[in-house]
Amino acid sequence: MIISETEIIVRYAETDQMGIVHHSNYPIWFEAARTEFIKSMGMSYSGIEERGFMLPLIELACRYKGAARYEDRLIVKTCVKQISYSKITFYYEVYKCSDNSLITTGETVHAWTNRNLKPVNIKKHAPDIFELLSKAVL
Amino acid sequence: MIISETEIIVRYAETDQMGIVHHSNYPIWFEAARTEFIKSMGMSYSGIEERGFMLPLIELACRYKGAARYEDRLIVKTCVKQISYSKITFYYEVYKCSDNSLITTGETVHAWTNRNLKPVNIKKHAPDIFELLSKAVL
Amino acid sequence: MIISETEIIVRYAETDQMGIVHHSNYPIWFEAARTEFIKSMGMSYSGIEERGFMLPLIELACRYKGAARYEDRLIVKTCVKQISYSKITFYYEVYKCSDNSLITTGETVHAWTNRNLKPVNIKKHAPDIFELLSKAVL
Amino acid sequence: MIISETEIIVRYAETDQMGIVHHSNYPIWFEAARTEFIKSMGMSYSGIEERGFMLPLIELACRYKGAARYEDRLIVKTCVKQISYSKITFYYEVYKCSDNSLITTGETVHAWTNRNLKPVNIKKHAPDIFELLSKAVL
Repeated sequence: MIISETEIIVRYAETDQMGIVHHSNYPIWFEAARTEFIKSMGMSYSGIEERGFMLPLIELACRYKGAARYEDRLIVKTCVKQISYSKITFYYEVYKCSDNSLITTGETVHAWTNRNLKPVNIKKHAPDIFELLSKAVL
Repeated sequence: MIISETEIIVRYAETDQMGIVHHSNYPIWFEAARTEFIKSMGMSYSGIEERGFMLPLIELACRYKGAARYEDRLIVKTCVKQISYSKITFYYEVYKCSDNSLITTGETVHAWTNRNLKPVNIKKHAPDIFELLSKAVL
Repeated sequence: MIISETEIIVRYAETDQMGIVHHSNYPIWFEAARTEFIKSMGMSYSGIEERGFMLPLIELACRYKGAARYEDRLIVKTCVKQISYSKITFYYEVYKCSDNSLITTGETVHAWTNRNLKPVNIKKHAPDIFELLSKAVL
Repeated sequence: MIISETEIIVRYAETDQMGIVHHSNYPIWFEAARTEFIKSMGMSYSGIEERGFMLPLIELACRYKGAARYEDRLIVKTCVKQISYSKITFYYEVYKCSDNSLITTGETVHAWTNRNLKPVNIKKHAPDIFELLSKAVL
């Protein structure tokens, strides 16, 4: 299994009046981590889109176990949990560097589509992308 | 069961380069809808916080079935799915007004805590809040 | 001079750990207000874009005189300050409804471009849009 | 004069339907860069806040000369333009790494306040902070 690690430094704008990171930022960090994961595989998500394939999110799940605060240094660990000809599922864990605690886990399910957001069979239309990401699951 | 309806007009900043609303905005809309739901019950979330009770999110789930676009008018329907002395679960449905289609559903689970984000028994410490929100479930 | 008024209810996600609205939200509210302003003129910004004209922002200025907080009800007043064949300048004032105080003023300058973000002479290529918005200045 | 450099990788969520970075992200990047600038001076903004001093933004100005896109690598150069007992002004330049072009410049003016957002004389109440940041201007 391939796992990438992405560093996040918490921005002031990401905090809320509870003094902690607002929960809506984690899906954005998952996405930044996904971008890095794909790059670590030797592709780029920009490049996948240029070839006409999109990965709109169809399901999102987060579990918040701890809080991050302004200026905290975090690590998002990312891997591919599952891939099929029509979908791909990523899994994420967010750790706080100061005490190595796991503060959030997440999962995102994406559909393979064309530019008009219609489903495509990625195994058939881009076997190279499918194979590369399939290797990441093992 | 009590259901509140909150209107959202999609902002340009909420779109992404796919030309649709970025998925990270839905949790923010759920929160705006939750604010209105609580207001419709005759309380205000600000008021709950002033009394020293917080509702940090501990779980988030979204299913995206359709896409919203810039200037679209949406309705978020909100209800309480479950409440206990320690937690409360809200459920949301987002409809596109133009064709009345259901584009997203979501669920958020929150813990009742004090200002230091330590768990509190809301049934014991604020029976009025607990009872009011319990009525919403029925 | 034509002025439109747009209501904003402050969202929790828009607050920061200072307990007030984070400054980066005002430009987003200006944009939502601009959308309503254009709609109040009998056009829609979506429609302008569909005809191939874009209005990327080239200058932004804000002055923050007071703070808004979660659940505050605000009014953004919007008008066109200046228009030429190549540019348009909007001016905004944000008022807090509770005490009618002016908390923020802003100005945005936009260039008229085509879909590839190259400058276009809007007076020549879309005289109807130019005339309509010119009327708003007077 | 002291200048810090902060790397930003453009996130998907930061793009809009024009296919470029939405303008409201630059003030957030300025803030992240400001955080790093202060850290590079041997302080931390968190630490300044813990001592009871806040730096709410009172003026913001941006000039957008070029566009950034998803996955672009950017550098934000930050310096202190001016400091007085009551205010501090930061200046920013954002460069695109691929062609070293200057795409955005910005300026933010902040007031020195206490926790209740009332003005304080920083030269008097925290001469160490004032002196350190004054050195950055020279």
